[in-house]
Amino acid sequence: MHLGLFILGTGSHVAGWRWPGAVTDFSDLSAIQQIARTAERGRFDLIFMGDNLYADPGSHPSYTLRLEPLTMMAALATTTKHIGLGATASTTYGDPWSTARAFASLDHISGGRAAWNAVTTTNPAAGANFDKELPAHADRYARAEEFIDVVMKLWDAWDDDALIADRATGVYLDPRKVRAIDHVGRYFKVKGPVNIGRAPQGRPIVLQAGGSAPGQALAARTADVVFTVTQDIEESKAAYKAVKERMAAFGRAPDQLAMLPGVMPVVGRTDREAREKLAILQSYVDSHNGLQLLTDRLGFDMTPYDFDGPVPELPQTEFSQTFARVLLDKARRDGLTLRDLYNLNAAARGHWVLCGSPATIADTLEIWFTERAADGFNVMPPWFHDNFDDFVDLVVPILQERGLFRCDYQGTTLRDHLALARPGSV
Amino acid sequence: MHLGLFILGTGSHVAGWRWPGAVTDFSDLSAIQQIARTAERGRFDLIFMGDNLYADPGSHPSYTLRLEPLTMMAALATTTKHIGLGATASTTYGDPWSTARAFASLDHISGGRAAWNAVTTTNPAAGANFDKELPAHADRYARAEEFIDVVMKLWDAWDDDALIADRATGVYLDPRKVRAIDHVGRYFKVKGPVNIGRAPQGRPIVLQAGGSAPGQALAARTADVVFTVTQDIEESKAAYKAVKERMAAFGRAPDQLAMLPGVMPVVGRTDREAREKLAILQSYVDSHNGLQLLTDRLGFDMTPYDFDGPVPELPQTEFSQTFARVLLDKARRDGLTLRDLYNLNAAARGHWVLCGSPATIADTLEIWFTERAADGFNVMPPWFHDNFDDFVDLVVPILQERGLFRCDYQGTTLRDHLALARPGSV
Repeated sequence: MHLGLFILGTGSHVAGWRWPGAVTDFSDLSAIQQIARTAERGRFDLIFMGDNLYADPGSHPSYTLRLEPLTMMAALATTTKHIGLGATASTTYGDPWSTARAFASLDHISGGRAAWNAVTTTNPAAGANFDKELPAHADRYARAEEFIDVVMKLWDAWDDDALIADRATGVYLDPRKVRAIDHVGRYFKVKGPVNIGRAPQGRPIVLQAGGSAPGQALAARTADVVFTVTQDIEESKAAYKAVKERMAAFGRAPDQLAMLPGVMPVVGRTDREAREKLAILQSYVDSHNGLQLLTDRLGFDMTPYDFDGPVPELPQTEFSQTFARVLLDKARRDGLTLRDLYNLNAAARGHWVLCGSPATIADTLEIWFTERAADGFNVMPPWFHDNFDDFVDLVVPILQERGLFRCDYQGTTLRDHLALARPGSV
Repeated sequence: MHLGLFILGTGSHVAGWRWPGAVTDFSDLSAIQQIARTAERGRFDLIFMGDNLYADPGSHPSYTLRLEPLTMMAALATTTKHIGLGATASTTYGDPWSTARAFASLDHISGGRAAWNAVTTTNPAAGANFDKELPAHADRYARAEEFIDVVMKLWDAWDDDALIADRATGVYLDPRKVRAIDHVGRYFKVKGPVNIGRAPQGRPIVLQAGGSAPGQALAARTADVVFTVTQDIEESKAAYKAVKERMAAFGRAPDQLAMLPGVMPVVGRTDREAREKLAILQSYVDSHNGLQLLTDRLGFDMTPYDFDGPVPELPQTEFSQTFARVLLDKARRDGLTLRDLYNLNAAARGHWVLCGSPATIADTLEIWFTERAADGFNVMPPWFHDNFDDFVDLVVPILQERGLFRCDYQGTTLRDHLALARPGSV
């Protein structure tokens, strides 16, 4: 089983920062260093940070303050030893040369622990910061496909042994071992190479999160780890099977990709205490923020609808399709009112909430893992630090006792933790 | 007196890596951490890293391997305590939103030690990595002016006390203390704000290096530190006076900007030993690399010219104008042959070489400082580590004994080291 820790804003519950003692300022590196140390104590595979390319202090105040992901992970690289370090960078608004270079740099800095969470940007608000309107869904994925290919080519443009540095002859590089890529495609024209040598991992790890059909196809072809959105084990099994089956077409074995559903654990000493904690958390939600969050996830303004009526039928949009589909499926399956859906979405911003005693949580994760609904989990604590401490100190040991999770790191790179082979020089 | 340490490639001498024991791989963080510790032991104001947005392994092999500047400085932030950390980011190929955000993040991570070396990209090779041809000189500077203005606006969009995080009321931010910037200009349209709060320094420090007329104008208006190219004290005095005088038009006092000429010190126990060291260094130069470097600096292919003839008259180009002007002026002044100019340029890539015993070097720096040719120096060691160790252990103590340089850090931020006031919230 693989475990990732997800951080964004003050925690994955929209108002988790109101918990007594919770961290409120995620631009404070010392708080993040403490979180990373806890995750490393728990032998997590990686810590990774979500991102947005805009700030919306009116509707999403507690997600507006953060460190920039690459600089933050570089700072964590020197204060952790084992854990993988994943940063989000957009394929919609970035450029492949800078992205390939920055992640290769993080991989060198961390001694082979870098991961790139390659996302398509889904919120139109980002466009206003770059003077470039958000492209349509299909176009974003076509661009992402090419973007990732160019990054891979740039990572492969240096061989491992290109640096010679022979003081006697003055030969610094072996010119046969570094190449321009001369990429010319629909979206990008990039000569290369980058000005940094081959990464310790060969290629840094690629994370993705797309759950739509184009997202699954992209992941099956290019991702090492997929972080999924789910509300249901059967749905998750189906997504797991779909992605793993798609991989064969690209000549990949199913174990070359780890699928990690997102889960927000609310840990109590008993199931009852955990439910009480969740109820307290939910009482913190500001209705304005909660409604805006639902509007964002569904891609439609929800204010005109009756809160205690059924969830309306909504067509597919050009924004994030995965959250909308998972939430609307859940509403239909369980006959939720709009208020129920609002509450569910506010809790973990559309992700799965798993509430219970350490044993209950471990049992559930074990079932999902053994029944092939997941290769592990992307843990999204509602707030920091004490709830995540509880997960690491109370849930992880049960998983370890059952032989489901590592008791210690076996290798030095993130590739080692994920049991993925290092790609050789081309 | 202020001292900056400049790093790029394997050192400022084009073949300094051939010195016995010299660092050959600048993508090795541990080597850079050692350099940063040495600079901090020497009480330097800052360490900063130059950059290019291309790799040219054929002509410039020893400058092709490096860490990406922002991730590198973020990693240094956690392994140093006092020294300022400057990273280069282009105004020609970057975007203001990402740049403002990344440097604010570095400032948070380092507790107020971030500096942005805002450059215009001068080498056409960069364009081929971004599918965007290098703009003409004037256009690059017009874009840089607006780029820097937008970054400043974004840094000012958050007030210091915007974060409230009142658990009882659920109010996270004070909405009156964070603003969109709604910038609409010739080159950029940026809504803002960034998703990170006001930097510890208010605004991170801005470094610049332009020596052309538009470069000096930009620096006089917006820079905190200017790193200059010089071969002569009188020339440097004139540039110093020109920039300082220009500042008044922008309502700035002369001491709000520090001018630091670049200098490559070659330290020997005696003047003679230092000259011998330089001769050894020069014997390392590969003529192909040396000639390519001269071609780059002058903006013209130098291969057709007689190496032992006079330096030809060359018109101004659209590339880097400053190096060409400084080198051609020097050639005219001293009646250099093309071979002399080649040797000079190969030594410190166009910068001033100061060769001598610790006392000779300290004497010269003192004269430049007291005669207002400089507010300090940008130290560009030809290789690492031992020549820079000698500067810190042998030259710096003389400057300290003479009361020219700090014996210890007095404050905690780079702004403190530079004696610049922190700008308040708008």
